[in-house]
Amino acid sequence: MAVDTAEASAKEIAKNGHFSRQHNLFTTPFGSKPGELPVEAGKYRLIWSAACPWATRSAIVLDLLGLTDAISIGKVAPLRPVEKNVDWDFTLDPNNVDPVLGIHYLSEAYLKADPNYDLRPTVPAVIDIASGKVVNNDYFKLTNYFEVQWRDFQKADAPDIYPEDLRSDIDALNQIIFTDVNNGVYKAGFAQSQAAYEKAYDQLFYRLDWLEDRLATRRFLFGNILTDSDVRLYTTLARFDAAYYDKFRCNKKRLRDYDHLWNYAKDLYSIPAFKKNTEFEAIKIHYHVSGHLSGTSATFAPVPKGPDASVWDTPNGRSKFGAIENFK
Amino acid sequence: MAVDTAEASAKEIAKNGHFSRQHNLFTTPFGSKPGELPVEAGKYRLIWSAACPWATRSAIVLDLLGLTDAISIGKVAPLRPVEKNVDWDFTLDPNNVDPVLGIHYLSEAYLKADPNYDLRPTVPAVIDIASGKVVNNDYFKLTNYFEVQWRDFQKADAPDIYPEDLRSDIDALNQIIFTDVNNGVYKAGFAQSQAAYEKAYDQLFYRLDWLEDRLATRRFLFGNILTDSDVRLYTTLARFDAAYYDKFRCNKKRLRDYDHLWNYAKDLYSIPAFKKNTEFEAIKIHYHVSGHLSGTSATFAPVPKGPDASVWDTPNGRSKFGAIENFK
Repeated sequence: MAVDTAEASAKEIAKNGHFSRQHNLFTTPFGSKPGELPVEAGKYRLIWSAACPWATRSAIVLDLLGLTDAISIGKVAPLRPVEKNVDWDFTLDPNNVDPVLGIHYLSEAYLKADPNYDLRPTVPAVIDIASGKVVNNDYFKLTNYFEVQWRDFQKADAPDIYPEDLRSDIDALNQIIFTDVNNGVYKAGFAQSQAAYEKAYDQLFYRLDWLEDRLATRRFLFGNILTDSDVRLYTTLARFDAAYYDKFRCNKKRLRDYDHLWNYAKDLYSIPAFKKNTEFEAIKIHYHVSGHLSGTSATFAPVPKGPDASVWDTPNGRSKFGAIENFK
Repeated sequence: MAVDTAEASAKEIAKNGHFSRQHNLFTTPFGSKPGELPVEAGKYRLIWSAACPWATRSAIVLDLLGLTDAISIGKVAPLRPVEKNVDWDFTLDPNNVDPVLGIHYLSEAYLKADPNYDLRPTVPAVIDIASGKVVNNDYFKLTNYFEVQWRDFQKADAPDIYPEDLRSDIDALNQIIFTDVNNGVYKAGFAQSQAAYEKAYDQLFYRLDWLEDRLATRRFLFGNILTDSDVRLYTTLARFDAAYYDKFRCNKKRLRDYDHLWNYAKDLYSIPAFKKNTEFEAIKIHYHVSGHLSGTSATFAPVPKGPDASVWDTPNGRSKFGAIENFK
C-alpha cells in the first residue's frame, strides 16, 4: 500500500491525499457520575510508548503530578513488531509480556474491549487491570482527566497545570497546537499528494513562527506558569530534529535553528518529568526503522547516528523571564 | 529487494552489509595512441543528470573549460522511469527523446555498445554520436581527460585546473575525497547493517572535519588555485543538506553548520559554471522521490520543500584569502 502502515492506515488517507487521523473509540471520561470511569487508585494501567508523542504527554503528566502510585505504567517497544506492523508489543519486558496485564501485543487489550476492533491499536491506552480491557484511549483529553479528575491522588505539591481560570485559553491554544503542529507534522509526513504535503508544511512553519514570537516574551506559553499546553507542544518539539525534519520532510528549519522555541524546549527538557520521558533513541528507532520498513519491501534500515542530542543539555537562558510560579 | 534499486543493485552489497560500487566497463582513455578514443570536436555527446554528483563533475568541467562547442551535452531527467527504475530517460526533451541520439532510455546506448550489458546504466556517459554507443563512462577519470587530452579545444583563457606540478597531490586528495566523501555518503546511505552504516558515517564526518581545517587557511583545497579536486568535493557538498543529510542519514551536521566548508561551497557556487550545473530541485526529486519509490511498494512521495536553497547566494567572505590565480 502507498502509505506507511505502521502509522496510518489507508482509511486515513482522503481522496485528495490529505491525512485524516482516525477517531478514538474509547472516550468515556473519568469522573463520579453514572457511566463515567471511576477514579480509583490501583485500578488502571497506562500503556505508553517512548516513541509516541501522544502517549508521552500522559507519561509526562503522570510524573509531573505524582500520579504514578495511583496509576501504574507499562511501556511498549519503539520498534513495531515485524509480524504485525500496525501493533505495538511488550518486547522491552521479561518474556516479552507486560508483567501486570500478561499480554504480548497491545491489540489484545483492544480486542478484549471490543472483539470487532479493527482500527490501529494506539497509545496512550488506559487499561482496566481486572478485566484487561482498554477503557480509554482518548489521547486528546487524557491529560486533562489526570489534571482535574485525579486531583485527590496527586502528590501534595503537584502543580496545577490546567488552572480553572485559564482553561478556555488553554483549550483554544491546544486546538491550534494540535491542528497545526502535533498533527501538522503527520499531515506533512503522510500526505499522498504534493499539494497536501505543501499545505501542511506551510501551515506547520507558519505556526512555529507564530509560537516563536509568542515565546520571545514569556518563559512558557502562558507566561511563568507551566501548563498542559506546554506538555503538548513539547512532545512534538522533542521529536522534530530526530524524526519530523527528515522522515516527515518538515525540513524548512530544525528546532535548533529557532532561537526562542529551541531554548524553550531545552528549558522544559531540564524538568525531570520531561527528561525522564524523552528517549531520543526510541524516537529514532520508531520513525526511521519501523517507519521505513513497514509498507515497503525493504529488510534493513539503520538507526541514524545523528542529530546530536547532547545539545539538549546546553544552557537555555530562559530563567531571565523569572521563576516558574506553579512548580518548584 | 532490500536496497534502493535505483542507485545500488543487490550485487553491490557485500555479505557484511557494506556497499561496494560497481566497476565501470567503458574505460578506454582519450588520446592519440592506438586504441585510445580520438579527440575530435563534434564526435561525442556527454549525457549527464543534474541529480548525479558523478555526472555533474563533467558538466561543470566542460563549462569551466569552454568545451561545450567541441562536446555536445544531453541531460536525462532526475526522476527515474517508473517502468525501468535502474535506468535514466530523456523525458526532459521534446517527444521524450534525446534530439541528437534519438533514444528514449540511456540503457539503449549501453546495449548498443554491449548487447550483454547488465550493470546499471550510469551517467556520465560519453557516447559516440555516429554509432550511438557508449565509449566511456569512467566517472573517476573523465574530468582529467577533458582537462588534459582536450586542451586544444578548450577556450583560449581556460583555467588549468589540473596543473602538471600538482597532479600527484591532486590525485592523492581525489582518492581521499572519493573514498570518504563522494562515495562515503553512498556507503552510509546504502549500508545494509548498522555497523557498516556507522563506519561510513564516522569516516565521512572525520573527513569533513579534516577538510574544514584545511579550508580554514586557504580559499580552495590547493590555495588560490581552483583545481579538479574542488569540483569533486563540490558536487557532494551541493547535495549534502538537500539529500545526504536526511535520505542517507548523514545527519551529524548539515553543510551549513560548518563554517569554512560552507563558505567554501558558496564561493564555488558563485562561479557560473558551478551555479549553472547545480539544480537543487533535480537533486531533491531524484533522491527523495525516485529513491523513495524504487524498491518499495509506495506509490507517492512528495518533493521536500526545504531546505532553504536561497542561502547559497549569501556572502561567503572567502575573498579574504585573495583572488583566484588561475581563473578570472
